[in-house]
Amino acid sequence: MRQRHKPWADDFLRDNQHIVIPDAKDYKNKWKSLFGNDRPIHVEIGTGKGQFITGMAKQFTDINFIGIEIAKSIIVTAAQKVKESGMENVFLLNEDAQDLREIFGDNEVEAIYLNFSDPWPKNRHEKRRLTFHTFLSQYQQVLDEAGELVLKTDNMGLFEYSLVSFSQFGMRLEEVDLDLHAKQDPANVMTEYEEKFSAKGQPIYRCRAKFK
Amino acid sequence: MRQRHKPWADDFLRDNQHIVIPDAKDYKNKWKSLFGNDRPIHVEIGTGKGQFITGMAKQFTDINFIGIEIAKSIIVTAAQKVKESGMENVFLLNEDAQDLREIFGDNEVEAIYLNFSDPWPKNRHEKRRLTFHTFLSQYQQVLDEAGELVLKTDNMGLFEYSLVSFSQFGMRLEEVDLDLHAKQDPANVMTEYEEKFSAKGQPIYRCRAKFK
Ligand SMILES: C[S@@+](CC[C@H](N)C(=O)[O-])C[C@H]1O[C@@H](n2cnc3c(N)ncnc32)[C@H](O)[C@@H]1O
Ligand SMILES: C[S@@+](CC[C@H](N)C(=O)[O-])C[C@H]1O[C@@H](n2cnc3c(N)ncnc32)[C@H](O)[C@@H]1O
Repeated sequence: MRQRHKPWADDFLRDNQHIVIPDAKDYKNKWKSLFGNDRPIHVEIGTGKGQFITGMAKQFTDINFIGIEIAKSIIVTAAQKVKESGMENVFLLNEDAQDLREIFGDNEVEAIYLNFSDPWPKNRHEKRRLTFHTFLSQYQQVLDEAGELVLKTDNMGLFEYSLVSFSQFGMRLEEVDLDLHAKQDPANVMTEYEEKFSAKGQPIYRCRAKFK
Repeated sequence: MRQRHKPWADDFLRDNQHIVIPDAKDYKNKWKSLFGNDRPIHVEIGTGKGQFITGMAKQFTDINFIGIEIAKSIIVTAAQKVKESGMENVFLLNEDAQDLREIFGDNEVEAIYLNFSDPWPKNRHEKRRLTFHTFLSQYQQVLDEAGELVLKTDNMGLFEYSLVSFSQFGMRLEEVDLDLHAKQDPANVMTEYEEKFSAKGQPIYRCRAKFK
């Protein structure tokens, strides 16, 4: 995603620390108290401009959402959406999601969404794919026993790779969709990338998997 | 597949019992001696007109192939192909593959191919799909420890279902291809259905899975 230089981003983030939480690591094991309730926590990695997470938060008001996005110039757009809608069940983190265990305690999370993650198609970049086994073991640790990992992508190579990677890790597939939009799931919330690619007629892949 | 009435089929099968083996159940645990060697045995279920199994047998001469096809009027075409080529590493069985354990002993088989199996799209027919768990436990029993199940299909619904079914059964995915022909695998042998559907531009799905 293209990052424009947004000089006002720093100011915006300073003024909206109730939405884009600084020092996220300080809240490890304390996210429920920050939300002020005991509802399940769902995490999105690579939140982008926030269309998915704000759409989900509107639809599932009894779930708390945390969106992690590394690019400052992009997360401000997501933060503006949260601010405008006034929703209280979304926090955003302007963090690198390289190690979720620094941000979340064991079993603190009930679902992790990977939406249109960078595919890293070259074999030598396999380790960077967010479904590489090192990431899976992080997800396993922060996810609750019944927790789910949900992957959506337009990228065939990443999807094929991820199904095998999940399986080899010992995860169990709960659902596989090879053309999500052909099914017209009314509960599906589109991401920015999903809207763009599905408008071009590309199939959207989705799967849900559990760690046993 | 459409079955034409072929009055000569009975005669042909009677004269070619060295190719289409009658009383297959008698050879349970004895297939290697019938082949006359100790090579691995690969089984195809629903062999149709035999393009795949004869193509495989030509390419992999150190593997023994057994094709099972319930329709007499169809298996004769496969048998003619075997006869004309003179290959000795293929047997055909004009049997119902409802229970492979009647035909094969434990660990007698090293690979099972399901090629363009009937998709049985209605939920109430789930039990008939050749990747329903009752079939998977049969395959597990007759397959060697390292044995593989290989599924090829053009049917998205059957493929989605099968990936989940394998996973829920505790099988491990070794490979998933969502557009086999885009990859141009020179070792891939096309079936009749595969040729027809891929010519129409439909993607061909394939996966390989093991029972741990
Ligand atoms: C291809 S975009 C997809 C955006 C959005 N999920 C969508 O579907 O429209 C990937 C996003 O992940 C973010 N990202 C990449 N690596 C990240 C990391 N290590 N931690 C957090 N976010 C990351 C990128 O900045 C980018 O916004
Ligand atoms: C859709 S066709 C596919 C034929 C071939 N495999 C191909 O890919 O071109 C399915 C085949 O499976 C056979 N078949 C269906 N049920 C079977 C059973 N229970 N036992 C053996 N063969 C069966 C049918 O007669 C038919 O030839």
